[in-house]
Amino acid sequence: MNKTRAILLIRCPDRPGLVATVTGFLLRAGGNVVDLDEHVDREAGVVFLRVEWELEGFALPRPALGQASAAEVGGPNGMHWSLHFTDESPRIAVLVSRLPHCLYDLLSRCDSGEWRAEIPFVISNHPDLEPVARRFGKEFRVFPSAPGSKPEAEAGMAALLDSGRVELIVLARYMQVLSPAFLARYPGRIINIHHSFLPAFPGARPYHNAHARGVKIIGATCHYVTEELDAGPIIEQDVARVSHHDSVDDLVRKGRDLEKIVLARGVYAHLRRKVIVHGNKTVVFA
Amino acid sequence: MNKTRAILLIRCPDRPGLVATVTGFLLRAGGNVVDLDEHVDREAGVVFLRVEWELEGFALPRPALGQASAAEVGGPNGMHWSLHFTDESPRIAVLVSRLPHCLYDLLSRCDSGEWRAEIPFVISNHPDLEPVARRFGKEFRVFPSAPGSKPEAEAGMAALLDSGRVELIVLARYMQVLSPAFLARYPGRIINIHHSFLPAFPGARPYHNAHARGVKIIGATCHYVTEELDAGPIIEQDVARVSHHDSVDDLVRKGRDLEKIVLARGVYAHLRRKVIVHGNKTVVFA
Amino acid sequence: MNKTRAILLIRCPDRPGLVATVTGFLLRAGGNVVDLDEHVDREAGVVFLRVEWELEGFALPRPALGQASAAEVGGPNGMHWSLHFTDESPRIAVLVSRLPHCLYDLLSRCDSGEWRAEIPFVISNHPDLEPVARRFGKEFRVFPSAPGSKPEAEAGMAALLDSGRVELIVLARYMQVLSPAFLARYPGRIINIHHSFLPAFPGARPYHNAHARGVKIIGATCHYVTEELDAGPIIEQDVARVSHHDSVDDLVRKGRDLEKIVLARGVYAHLRRKVIVHGNKTVVFA
Amino acid sequence: MNKTRAILLIRCPDRPGLVATVTGFLLRAGGNVVDLDEHVDREAGVVFLRVEWELEGFALPRPALGQASAAEVGGPNGMHWSLHFTDESPRIAVLVSRLPHCLYDLLSRCDSGEWRAEIPFVISNHPDLEPVARRFGKEFRVFPSAPGSKPEAEAGMAALLDSGRVELIVLARYMQVLSPAFLARYPGRIINIHHSFLPAFPGARPYHNAHARGVKIIGATCHYVTEELDAGPIIEQDVARVSHHDSVDDLVRKGRDLEKIVLARGVYAHLRRKVIVHGNKTVVFA
Repeated sequence: MNKTRAILLIRCPDRPGLVATVTGFLLRAGGNVVDLDEHVDREAGVVFLRVEWELEGFALPRPALGQASAAEVGGPNGMHWSLHFTDESPRIAVLVSRLPHCLYDLLSRCDSGEWRAEIPFVISNHPDLEPVARRFGKEFRVFPSAPGSKPEAEAGMAALLDSGRVELIVLARYMQVLSPAFLARYPGRIINIHHSFLPAFPGARPYHNAHARGVKIIGATCHYVTEELDAGPIIEQDVARVSHHDSVDDLVRKGRDLEKIVLARGVYAHLRRKVIVHGNKTVVFA
Repeated sequence: MNKTRAILLIRCPDRPGLVATVTGFLLRAGGNVVDLDEHVDREAGVVFLRVEWELEGFALPRPALGQASAAEVGGPNGMHWSLHFTDESPRIAVLVSRLPHCLYDLLSRCDSGEWRAEIPFVISNHPDLEPVARRFGKEFRVFPSAPGSKPEAEAGMAALLDSGRVELIVLARYMQVLSPAFLARYPGRIINIHHSFLPAFPGARPYHNAHARGVKIIGATCHYVTEELDAGPIIEQDVARVSHHDSVDDLVRKGRDLEKIVLARGVYAHLRRKVIVHGNKTVVFA
Repeated sequence: MNKTRAILLIRCPDRPGLVATVTGFLLRAGGNVVDLDEHVDREAGVVFLRVEWELEGFALPRPALGQASAAEVGGPNGMHWSLHFTDESPRIAVLVSRLPHCLYDLLSRCDSGEWRAEIPFVISNHPDLEPVARRFGKEFRVFPSAPGSKPEAEAGMAALLDSGRVELIVLARYMQVLSPAFLARYPGRIINIHHSFLPAFPGARPYHNAHARGVKIIGATCHYVTEELDAGPIIEQDVARVSHHDSVDDLVRKGRDLEKIVLARGVYAHLRRKVIVHGNKTVVFA
Repeated sequence: MNKTRAILLIRCPDRPGLVATVTGFLLRAGGNVVDLDEHVDREAGVVFLRVEWELEGFALPRPALGQASAAEVGGPNGMHWSLHFTDESPRIAVLVSRLPHCLYDLLSRCDSGEWRAEIPFVISNHPDLEPVARRFGKEFRVFPSAPGSKPEAEAGMAALLDSGRVELIVLARYMQVLSPAFLARYPGRIINIHHSFLPAFPGARPYHNAHARGVKIIGATCHYVTEELDAGPIIEQDVARVSHHDSVDDLVRKGRDLEKIVLARGVYAHLRRKVIVHGNKTVVFA
């Protein structure tokens, strides 16, 4: 488990022999493939590939690997690829408002070493959760969301995110809508947890709406953020059973556990490089 | 398990002492209560009560029981109640279109004695499923849904349903919208299975829409039919996990099992007199 | 969906390039691969491969295909493979005792065309379910299980199964233990449904035992039958929530739906050639 | 939500009129009942009752309430009852060994105010998790588990628990077996999380055993600790789906989330006074 591995993610128009090409290239360079997953979306004509191999004994040094990958499997034909290493610790910024349960959960997972990732700071539009961040020794930065101040707040956040070399932005019950300009700056790098089973109950107050509708199951959805509210590519969803016994407060309580677990599964899949986005959908390898 | 029991369902404005009144009345008449469930919706100020007791040794004969119940617990105060006996076999009409899986399942449950209920006939707008009904010795009646013929078809169905003393109408993937007039004739007596996790994906082609949206979980919803399409009181819901592996055909396949099980759970709860409707919601006792 | 396809299942010691060899061979012969799944069990050093391709335009006729597959990918190295075609209708014998719910479900799926499979006859140690088989036009054969008569009964069943060219034997709540000799005759071809979440509650009366233990969840397990009772390779499992409200009869009732759905999922996976057995475990492709 | 309420839990031999007696008593004393749940186990002849009412306007002061409850509903007839108030903060001791995920989760819930409960200290047989306790400002006490030292360690723990007025002891992946004498000191007050779907895989290394058996679903079980290992009354269970993709490490990872959520649900049910133990089973009210 502790040997460093490389992970190559590929999305490209379907073409015969892609797997053979990639595995052949790795074989020749002495890479011991420990995991390979391919998915072909016949309808869309797109192939998705994830291959993970040990670097020990691998002929190519890291700097040359990207170039070689591009040369071997790339080309002018609409291929997208990315290369990752399991000894990297991706830097995550967590954005919160007033609800702490997802924040505690994310901080605990990084703090305990359950995840190989680093949370350099926590950002909020409210000061409330500073003590939580402080418990874990994290810097806590407030960018208030006063009327008209969004451009300024987002500029401040972007400066902080960029100076902190943040790779992934996790909205852990952050109750502000981010501008298209801000979103465009971090494509495929912002993950949100929405407290409903999307596309049911988008927007505000989903537990109130679920209660009013009389549903027998509630849910939570982890997705990449795009311009359209609560409509980005879904990474993970899960549900919990409710009944006539449950008030709105009970839905909120049961939902908290759903939210933190579903968010954690989505972020973990991203960190383990198991997710490839295509259009408004995701491939999430097992 | 085989002793005949009576079941009293009550919904009324919350008032202290209702349970004491009802159980006291049954106690005095020698009824052995085998199950009692109460739910108080504090917000709405409504109490829901279900009590089931053995008729053996019970002082009141059936004909007098309704009247006595009304006298003891009723009154001018918005109480709704209904009385049922476990040796009755409710008569169910099953309405179908072209998909057979829910029909097979319902017929099998009645045929095997799993349910104490009778299906006197199967109704459809297509002739396709006649062989299925015939396998189980059921009459099969077609009321075609040609343009403009809905009033005539519904009149024919109503005549058949009434002459057949049908208590419950089950829409087992019946793909026609019933008119408000028809629905008004059978209030709280029409149960539908919708092939999505409502309120997500109402209307036509939910599996296509779920696939296009890239959800990771699909669902089915059993509900009472009201005028607004797919918006009636929900009795039961359940879900199944899907992934990028699943085509629309896979969703349809996985959904079939969900649909038949969720429909059966909803119909069974109704037949066992476990459901009380209030506004657009249900109380479903355990 | 309607084009005939071939399916090749392979299990063999892990070796680099197996996928490349297989896909290369199919490519050269003009096979359009529509699904390919590989799983490598690093610990056991075994690779599992399932590839499905369209026969239209494929260069090799069926009779030659097996030989060619063997020549291309086979060898003396512990490889096991099997070849299937999607226009085949596997013949299934269903063995039952007195409980009908799984039998209805299996017959319904074949009768409706949901599954491409044929059930030539139903076998039982009791006469009770003959009417169910008759409803679906199936022959029903009784082999009673009197003390000492097992060898004779099993000999009769084997003769019937063989003359009926049965590929798969499904124990649909068949309450007899089959002898090692009988099992050895049909390796990997007998599927059972056990009414518990194995390895919890093997053997008789699992619902009684689950109730006595006070579990909060019950389950069902679909597995291949091996000599050790309820210990064969598991294909599929699922669970349902129970509570203090539920009597043993309630567990039995809730369990019925679990059993029939879990059995159907397991049998379907087998029929779609999604399952490869290795030792006492299964690979079940998505 | 914020008004203080009293909760009365009763377990006694079934007798007609118990609910009427209790509700009548509360009514006369001006108690506004906000929740009442009754369960009758007909087979065992036992009734379980939970009633929650507002103290505002209630005639009896707290000190007199217990006595009055006893006088009204008690007697020499095998009744067990307990009385609780929602403004109490039960004191919980968390016992851990080396795995931190459940500890983080419990500390987070108390720290955030999600639970009204206090964790005065964390106890372990290893020093590893001291930093976690310190993050949350908790005292951390080590009682090592050297051979032969169990009596001494347990005596030390008991002294600490008693001086700390601890009501509930939570074994959050504490890997030591407690002696019968220690258990007898805290009857119904020790809750454990076991990392399997009991009664499957009791004892050590359940994930290894689950992997070896090839199950398709893993689970976790929250239960009261009794003398027989992993055999006490179950409060809550849940499961997660696994597949051939999952190594033992994957089961451990998926299991972590199960464990912490199932433990939290069980502890929460206890803290909200929703659980009544009877023999080796529990009633857990909704």
